[in-house]
Amino acid sequence: MKTLVIVAHPKIDNSTTEQFFYQGAQLVQANWHHLDTLDRINIEHEQQLLLQAQRIIFQFPLYWYQAPASLSQWQTQVLSNQFLNNSLRDKELGIVVTTGLPAKAFQAGGQVGYSLGQLMTPFQALARQAQMQFLPIFPVYQFYYLSEIEQLQLFMDYQRYLSQDFPDSLKNRSQWYLHYLQKQQNRKNATQDLIIQTFTQMTDELNSAQATLDLIKQDEDDTFE
Amino acid sequence: MKTLVIVAHPKIDNSTTEQFFYQGAQLVQANWHHLDTLDRINIEHEQQLLLQAQRIIFQFPLYWYQAPASLSQWQTQVLSNQFLNNSLRDKELGIVVTTGLPAKAFQAGGQVGYSLGQLMTPFQALARQAQMQFLPIFPVYQFYYLSEIEQLQLFMDYQRYLSQDFPDSLKNRSQWYLHYLQKQQNRKNATQDLIIQTFTQMTDELNSAQATLDLIKQDEDDTFE
Repeated sequence: MKTLVIVAHPKIDNSTTEQFFYQGAQLVQANWHHLDTLDRINIEHEQQLLLQAQRIIFQFPLYWYQAPASLSQWQTQVLSNQFLNNSLRDKELGIVVTTGLPAKAFQAGGQVGYSLGQLMTPFQALARQAQMQFLPIFPVYQFYYLSEIEQLQLFMDYQRYLSQDFPDSLKNRSQWYLHYLQKQQNRKNATQDLIIQTFTQMTDELNSAQATLDLIKQDEDDTFE
Repeated sequence: MKTLVIVAHPKIDNSTTEQFFYQGAQLVQANWHHLDTLDRINIEHEQQLLLQAQRIIFQFPLYWYQAPASLSQWQTQVLSNQFLNNSLRDKELGIVVTTGLPAKAFQAGGQVGYSLGQLMTPFQALARQAQMQFLPIFPVYQFYYLSEIEQLQLFMDYQRYLSQDFPDSLKNRSQWYLHYLQKQQNRKNATQDLIIQTFTQMTDELNSAQATLDLIKQDEDDTFE
């Protein structure tokens, strides 16, 4: 899958979060495109980048509950109704949003009072106009407070967000991990082989369990008909 | 009432809508502050303007379902958590948003699919953090298609949005009109006098009718207790 990550961040050099994500984007061969360091916006080139991608990600820190100005500036210059209505259909639009606030702030009665979904409505409207598939938002709350294990989990989740098929089902997830591990195998190493073997076996078992569950559910559905 | 109208519009010279609103803002002595023509943003001066105002209006055309970049740029530079949390409490925040789309586009199933209230969620979150009162959004749909009468109505409604007390009740509205007509009276003119007399009389009658209605309602409430 060809993924374009459009990053809007005025102070990216000071952001360990973005450097962290940059590494993840490299591992899945995503195209990392930082707007704030562009000398000028070449509209045709930007449109080409969009056309070549199957998944487009807007990635940014929350500035007063919105994307930074560099992203809206870019949108104004690069997108036209003509282009949006005709050129991006069936592509996917994802949002990676980082915030210094905790998850619990983004709810009715919380510190912010609104969910990220509500705050990101303009991007949902954009995807709707372009007939793109809007992916579930990928929120990153208080990166600095994450433990090493949590960071590793986030690192893998981010790579999946950039390159795994949606929906984020067990099947799509295990296929992605299998593929990921096989790629790593170039380094040839007995432990890796063992992990892959085990993983494949677990996946088979899970698939078989899933089939059994489906049968049971089918049975129940019949009962209540 | 001291009102500050913060206008974000990259192409204001070509906008008859904004020139139209500029006239209205002058008539109610609002402070018209256009961001895109500022040479540079003097943070202290901008904060002073905010502190001096009782009502603050963000006014802009919709660019990809958001405010133009000049407004978010201004927000990033001028607002700090410190300032927002301590200095704007109990002031009012209003939004005047112009769009080339019709009202019916802004609803589930419509062309946009989302309401202006949903799209403007970031400003509601901003008002909430600052403990400001968020006023009902003042939308301007397809200005070019308005008839002369509709434009006149809009012209008065806009002036009221900038200077009338909220809520927009019959009482607040008639008081505003009375005050407005009296100001115009400087030009001394028999017709004006007559209008004011009639208007005062109508207001009295309406107040009396309202009192009667209140009594009836009171009576009904008692009945259903």
